[in-house]
Amino acid sequence: MSLNSSNNLTIALDVMGGDQGPLVTIPSAIMAIQQQPNLHLILCGNEDVITATLNQHGISKDCLAKHKQLSLCSTTQIVSMEDKPSYAMRNKKNSSMRKALDLVHEGKAQACVSAGNTGALFSMAHFVLKTLPGVERPALISALPTHDNEKHVFMLDLGANVFCDSHVLYQFGVMGSVLAEQVDGISKPRIALLNMGEEAIKGSDHIKLAALELSQNREINYIGFIEGSDIFANKADVIVCDGFVGNVALKTCEGVARLVYHRSKAIFTQNLFSKLLSFLLTPSFKKLFKTMNPDQYNGASLIGLRGIVVKSHGNANSKAFFAAILEAIKEVERQVPEKIKSTLERGLSAN
Amino acid sequence: MSLNSSNNLTIALDVMGGDQGPLVTIPSAIMAIQQQPNLHLILCGNEDVITATLNQHGISKDCLAKHKQLSLCSTTQIVSMEDKPSYAMRNKKNSSMRKALDLVHEGKAQACVSAGNTGALFSMAHFVLKTLPGVERPALISALPTHDNEKHVFMLDLGANVFCDSHVLYQFGVMGSVLAEQVDGISKPRIALLNMGEEAIKGSDHIKLAALELSQNREINYIGFIEGSDIFANKADVIVCDGFVGNVALKTCEGVARLVYHRSKAIFTQNLFSKLLSFLLTPSFKKLFKTMNPDQYNGASLIGLRGIVVKSHGNANSKAFFAAILEAIKEVERQVPEKIKSTLERGLSAN
Repeated sequence: MSLNSSNNLTIALDVMGGDQGPLVTIPSAIMAIQQQPNLHLILCGNEDVITATLNQHGISKDCLAKHKQLSLCSTTQIVSMEDKPSYAMRNKKNSSMRKALDLVHEGKAQACVSAGNTGALFSMAHFVLKTLPGVERPALISALPTHDNEKHVFMLDLGANVFCDSHVLYQFGVMGSVLAEQVDGISKPRIALLNMGEEAIKGSDHIKLAALELSQNREINYIGFIEGSDIFANKADVIVCDGFVGNVALKTCEGVARLVYHRSKAIFTQNLFSKLLSFLLTPSFKKLFKTMNPDQYNGASLIGLRGIVVKSHGNANSKAFFAAILEAIKEVERQVPEKIKSTLERGLSAN
Repeated sequence: MSLNSSNNLTIALDVMGGDQGPLVTIPSAIMAIQQQPNLHLILCGNEDVITATLNQHGISKDCLAKHKQLSLCSTTQIVSMEDKPSYAMRNKKNSSMRKALDLVHEGKAQACVSAGNTGALFSMAHFVLKTLPGVERPALISALPTHDNEKHVFMLDLGANVFCDSHVLYQFGVMGSVLAEQVDGISKPRIALLNMGEEAIKGSDHIKLAALELSQNREINYIGFIEGSDIFANKADVIVCDGFVGNVALKTCEGVARLVYHRSKAIFTQNLFSKLLSFLLTPSFKKLFKTMNPDQYNGASLIGLRGIVVKSHGNANSKAFFAAILEAIKEVERQVPEKIKSTLERGLSAN
């Protein structure tokens, strides 16, 4: 393995992750280096498979050895979608996923991108990279669509943690605020806590305590509680909840989108006339339902760690995995982990 | 007040509850007595307002006094949508909501129907009626649409309780199973627990424990964990979760439905041609999105109490409030509380 560390920007890719592995990740890698001349990608995975796939895209083995933007990190194992996190942690130390994370930990890459098993990636990333000072638990954060086509809303935690106490929710608020500000350039992002109602008396004690903590940090623009019905209403830039609730909300969105799609199809096949309309409208509606599936909207980031980890969807296509690489680049350039650390430290010293 | 207890079926209505109060509840009451000759309704609320509204529908004060299916329970207070539950409990003892519940408690009515403040109704109902033996917490349950037009899925708890331990979730499973079997006539309803994943290792300890308890009750057809994405997929007849998660999931559905509606409208107004299509398709789509809003899908029931309480949506129209009265009748006829009690007792003695 030769690591070209002369480039400014080095990202480790878990080439074998995701439902289609290299068939998706390699084309995305090529798109990324073509678009970003200062980008260096370390391709972690099975050497034979990677070289064969690169060859199909006109990059021979010799060419790879001399390539300024690509290098290979040969691994022998793959974390499957079925592997339990604990099993993967113990038994998949030479997997493409683990090696990509190791490279970040060793300072040889500034970020890791994977479309692999979320639970395993989360556990390994937590174990290998550790959390930032002041962060108890890392969180999975993603951008969801809003009524405004031009804007999205970040939501965390989307399933990395089952239960989160008030202080963890507070930290998530700070982490989300930094990400929205740095990656999306939103000045003073509006931070809200997902709750059963908007009134201050609603919800559990730990949510009320988290609200108090967030409102006491002057750097955070905490706007209060938000209900599930307003997630997409562009009322907040960041919505904070525990991983169980976030996961259920995200997957419920997917379920509703499927139900609407199913029922719309029924409308379109009522009679010959509506079938004709369906033919004419289908492309627009397909596009709509694709955007509506937040699970595939784009990649998610694991934040709160001493390193950048971006998770692409398991069945991401090349365009989606490419978007995840671009997300990682943004987080590297804006130094998201460093800024989370300093914002938390300032919040602590102010109280 | 004269209570006509010679009828078989007596239901107390909180006439003043809901955004439009008597303007909605009175027409529903008239529809109900016309459809159900053995039904007796006790109208709880402001006497002047009720008699005036009835008068508009051709029922004079004299006529009411002699009416075989309607009687009046005069009250002086109204629980507003803004009243905190604790405030309503202490200070609204002569409200239409409280009196309707008192009538159930006193055995003068077999069920209560209200479109009023959910939190206040829940607290008052819990206080006045008390839970059934073996039930720690009552739950809010409602039917949601599924991919199959002919079938729906019951979900509980939808927000009555913030947190529920394993045994409470188990009781919810039993309660939901009885309701689905008795009200919908489903033999061996499929009971699932809402979780972060379908695998047995997922989720919190209390969910795993609830799964164990449910699987040990032979009368319950427990089918395992279900994810948010499958709520509407007709994979289960009853989905169990705590009130916080249920409330967020339900309201997220509402949020997604609004987002889809918003985005669909954008598709329809892209150009003159799609505007024309919109004109032709709008009625079908309006109907679709109405069904898609589970919050207004139909009434919800508070189950687990020593009495039947059906909650209609705050902005229910006459048809929806009428549906809530029919739901209450069904629960009375099928003796839902008695059956929950006996199913829990048999579960207890079998373990």
